Amino acid sequence: MTTQIGILVVGNEILDGIVLDTNSQWIINQLKALNLHVKEKMTVRDEITEIAKALRRLVADGCNLVFTTGGLGPTHDDKTLSGVAEAFGLPLELNEEAFSIVTRQYSDLHEQGIIETAEITEARRKMAVMPRGARPLDNRVGGAPGVLLDIEGAQIVCLPGVPGELMWIFDNQLLALLKKRVEGAFAEKIIFLPLRDESTLAPIIDEVMEDVSDVYIKSMVKPYGESGIRLWVSARGQSQIEVKERVNRVANLLMTLCEERLPKG
Amino acid sequence: MTTQIGILVVGNEILDGIVLDTNSQWIINQLKALNLHVKEKMTVRDEITEIAKALRRLVADGCNLVFTTGGLGPTHDDKTLSGVAEAFGLPLELNEEAFSIVTRQYSDLHEQGIIETAEITEARRKMAVMPRGARPLDNRVGGAPGVLLDIEGAQIVCLPGVPGELMWIFDNQLLALLKKRVEGAFAEKIIFLPLRDESTLAPIIDEVMEDVSDVYIKSMVKPYGESGIRLWVSARGQSQIEVKERVNRVANLLMTLCEERLPKG
Repeated sequence: MTTQIGILVVGNEILDGIVLDTNSQWIINQLKALNLHVKEKMTVRDEITEIAKALRRLVADGCNLVFTTGGLGPTHDDKTLSGVAEAFGLPLELNEEAFSIVTRQYSDLHEQGIIETAEITEARRKMAVMPRGARPLDNRVGGAPGVLLDIEGAQIVCLPGVPGELMWIFDNQLLALLKKRVEGAFAEKIIFLPLRDESTLAPIIDEVMEDVSDVYIKSMVKPYGESGIRLWVSARGQSQIEVKERVNRVANLLMTLCEERLPKG
Repeated sequence: MTTQIGILVVGNEILDGIVLDTNSQWIINQLKALNLHVKEKMTVRDEITEIAKALRRLVADGCNLVFTTGGLGPTHDDKTLSGVAEAFGLPLELNEEAFSIVTRQYSDLHEQGIIETAEITEARRKMAVMPRGARPLDNRVGGAPGVLLDIEGAQIVCLPGVPGELMWIFDNQLLALLKKRVEGAFAEKIIFLPLRDESTLAPIIDEVMEDVSDVYIKSMVKPYGESGIRLWVSARGQSQIEVKERVNRVANLLMTLCEERLPKG
């Protein structure tokens, strides 16, 4: 079964402009290296019903692998797991394995003299409360374990919003699992053209895409009025060698045609 | 009528990790200065049906002001306006006002010696083709006008993905319109606490939020294991003076309680 991926970013701090979401780009690039591609992304506030609704939508859209980021911590506004529970009609309960991870983390941090007490307070215990059937993903960087839930034919992966914790869990707890999903091959190349005018490129791109099928060409104007256009060429297929060759052929063709037909900007 | 805002980011380059979306954070912060807040954000690929579906969802969710970013340019993958047309069952047609903007832009750029010809090619003409009933938003930075469409009780604002163009249109063509929507007051404050452990903060935050209602407190751990926690305090209300006073009061209370009860990290 083809993997269709959705990302759900949870957090008022994102939708109120306090924090720039870089987590999803990081996840996307890790997945891309495995030839796994993200279909869509949603960003919602720290509200249980909003989280639940977004999850249901992603699954209804055919996403069978959904990453959530944020909202796993100890404070009142960390509501992602309540949203997951509501989305799939699951009760929330203390997960024993998660509880032992949380306990170990605070004990370690206490031994290292980083925190004052290892006592499992109500706030810390909250991080071990998960939807029934979920498995915790060990987190050796912070207090909140990640969460893995297989439900309704989809896999829900909940990661903390703190980038260092998210990255650690992804690299150490998920990679082996994700590698099983890898299908086919992917290649991409970005070429830089010293042009000013995207509109003159359009017919060249159309011509090349007619000539070589199954390749995606995207022109990207430099952000702030700087000169130059980036052309991003990407393709998918079965063989890594063939896909790479196809991308290179298209990139060369584009450069040749631009060189021949367009004035430099 | 209260303004409910949605953002739709369009572009494979975002969902494939080539470009980091900073446009929506910029828009969010401009809106916040007007006490206008974003309810949710969606990010989809350059596919007409995906764009249309996302727009319909945002409007169905109660968003009566929707910003789209990206997909207004001259190339094959610029499909946002086709998505808008499909979402609301509108035909696409050449907009005369948009056509004169596009014509003026290429004429100006040609006069400045930046582009080789002012001729309105098919690719350039494409940027003046809009859903029926839409109004163009002048763009003096690039070729593609923005788009304003009032439909089904909602206002759809389409902005180019190039940040410099998006910002110019927002500042010069939208601000006056958005100011009419301003309601009430908003204030926020970020305080920095030299703490290591978010879980010890949770009961203090709960106590303060019980004490002073209508205030939102969010703790944010520093991204990459650095020491320190940021507390973001925000509130909305009718009077700017009252809201600001409320935020300051809560910020001071938080700092006092943390000082009294928590060890420094």
